[in-house]
Amino acid sequence: MVKNMSYLGDLIYKPEKVEGEAAGKKETHTPKIRAPNKVKAGEPFTVEIEVGPHPNQAVHSIRYVQLFFKEEGRAFNPIHLATAILEPEYAEPKITFTVKVKKPGTLYALGYCNLHGLWESSAKIEVE
Amino acid sequence: MVKNMSYLGDLIYKPEKVEGEAAGKKETHTPKIRAPNKVKAGEPFTVEIEVGPHPNQAVHSIRYVQLFFKEEGRAFNPIHLATAILEPEYAEPKITFTVKVKKPGTLYALGYCNLHGLWESSAKIEVE
Amino acid sequence: MVKNMSYLGDLIYKPEKVEGEAAGKKETHTPKIRAPNKVKAGEPFTVEIEVGPHPNQAVHSIRYVQLFFKEEGRAFNPIHLATAILEPEYAEPKITFTVKVKKPGTLYALGYCNLHGLWESSAKIEVE
Amino acid sequence: MVKNMSYLGDLIYKPEKVEGEAAGKKETHTPKIRAPNKVKAGEPFTVEIEVGPHPNQAVHSIRYVQLFFKEEGRAFNPIHLATAILEPEYAEPKITFTVKVKKPGTLYALGYCNLHGLWESSAKIEVE
Repeated sequence: MVKNMSYLGDLIYKPEKVEGEAAGKKETHTPKIRAPNKVKAGEPFTVEIEVGPHPNQAVHSIRYVQLFFKEEGRAFNPIHLATAILEPEYAEPKITFTVKVKKPGTLYALGYCNLHGLWESSAKIEVE
Repeated sequence: MVKNMSYLGDLIYKPEKVEGEAAGKKETHTPKIRAPNKVKAGEPFTVEIEVGPHPNQAVHSIRYVQLFFKEEGRAFNPIHLATAILEPEYAEPKITFTVKVKKPGTLYALGYCNLHGLWESSAKIEVE
Repeated sequence: MVKNMSYLGDLIYKPEKVEGEAAGKKETHTPKIRAPNKVKAGEPFTVEIEVGPHPNQAVHSIRYVQLFFKEEGRAFNPIHLATAILEPEYAEPKITFTVKVKKPGTLYALGYCNLHGLWESSAKIEVE
Repeated sequence: MVKNMSYLGDLIYKPEKVEGEAAGKKETHTPKIRAPNKVKAGEPFTVEIEVGPHPNQAVHSIRYVQLFFKEEGRAFNPIHLATAILEPEYAEPKITFTVKVKKPGTLYALGYCNLHGLWESSAKIEVE
């Protein structure tokens, strides 16, 4: 399938939609998000992001991961929560951030592989 | 228009497509890219990214900008080139990176405003 | 005491040495490192860095934390392992990185508060 | 000379002080700062940071550069102004930030080479 991907947002791989050569990279590049389903408004909770198993070499590694939040009802989204810059060979793509939100919404993890691009995933969060 | 934006890539504002409340933020949030139309393969050239005029306060600022490259013919895109983290009140969203590419393609700038989200723009680059 | 601190490295607060006004910020700004005393060469282990309790507001927060490693016997040190960029109000200064080292040495955590500067701490790591 | 460098701040190479093997890396690793001697309070000015000539390979590159400011009379220093994360092979260690300060002080540039560590340099800024 030829697709004219003229926007950066369209270049981010979504595991449910990858086709062709990218499909074979889905297991090793889709960020896994480990977070509670329900949290308390304004109270810190942990979000673990893990990518892989993935090589960790200077020439091929997950260079960074980012965590965003789409807050329900907010006029503009997403909110950037945190970014981790990972030194190849030394830092594995497995990070736990501690964050807090005020309203329900969706967490997005974004991982970058220097050979295989940007990969996203998401997880819904309820707030009690 | 109600749109179910369930992917992070879809949340990035594209100036040609913004609607409703976001349309009023287009002038102040779309990254301007200043780069040559044509470069030499593997030779450094400068890319200036500027956002604004935009407020620069702790409570409202462009927190970071990123530069990516979609290389024609590469199996996976984009390539991350550089990221600038900007301290509110002190660093303006106007940065010049020095980069090099081997093949023609498209530069993408991505800017993040803590109140108004992610905004992208692009510029084509030929290689001689 | 008047001290002519003309190097950036000298400006980093070391909890054992802080004097004057900085002494009162020691408890709230010194990074706490939680890591094993002994690890296996090349096998991933977790390092938690926590700063605080510290305010988390747009006008006053821990903006980022970094993790470095001084490897015994390496000609040049330190090695940067990872950096976490924390969005004020949303991301708490409590992060767990997963890293690996080949030789014994010293982990260094560095935290940055936009009002109170750079603070470092360290922890020794043995390798079996 | 054997020196027990137990603080991270002490590990940062200062070009005026490097000895032994590090002396040979001074020309290629000390950040060059290009900035005005005098600026107007609160008005943006550009600061160019350049490191090198330095290799730019996945296995050996300047991974990031940072810009800090020691503001005269401020109780705590330094202030982080901006950080640039540079993708090896694509982004050269030559960046121009646009910043503003309110009082006189000293700019510090910090560059990180994955093989040869952290290198700092500084430049005084007057304010009229």
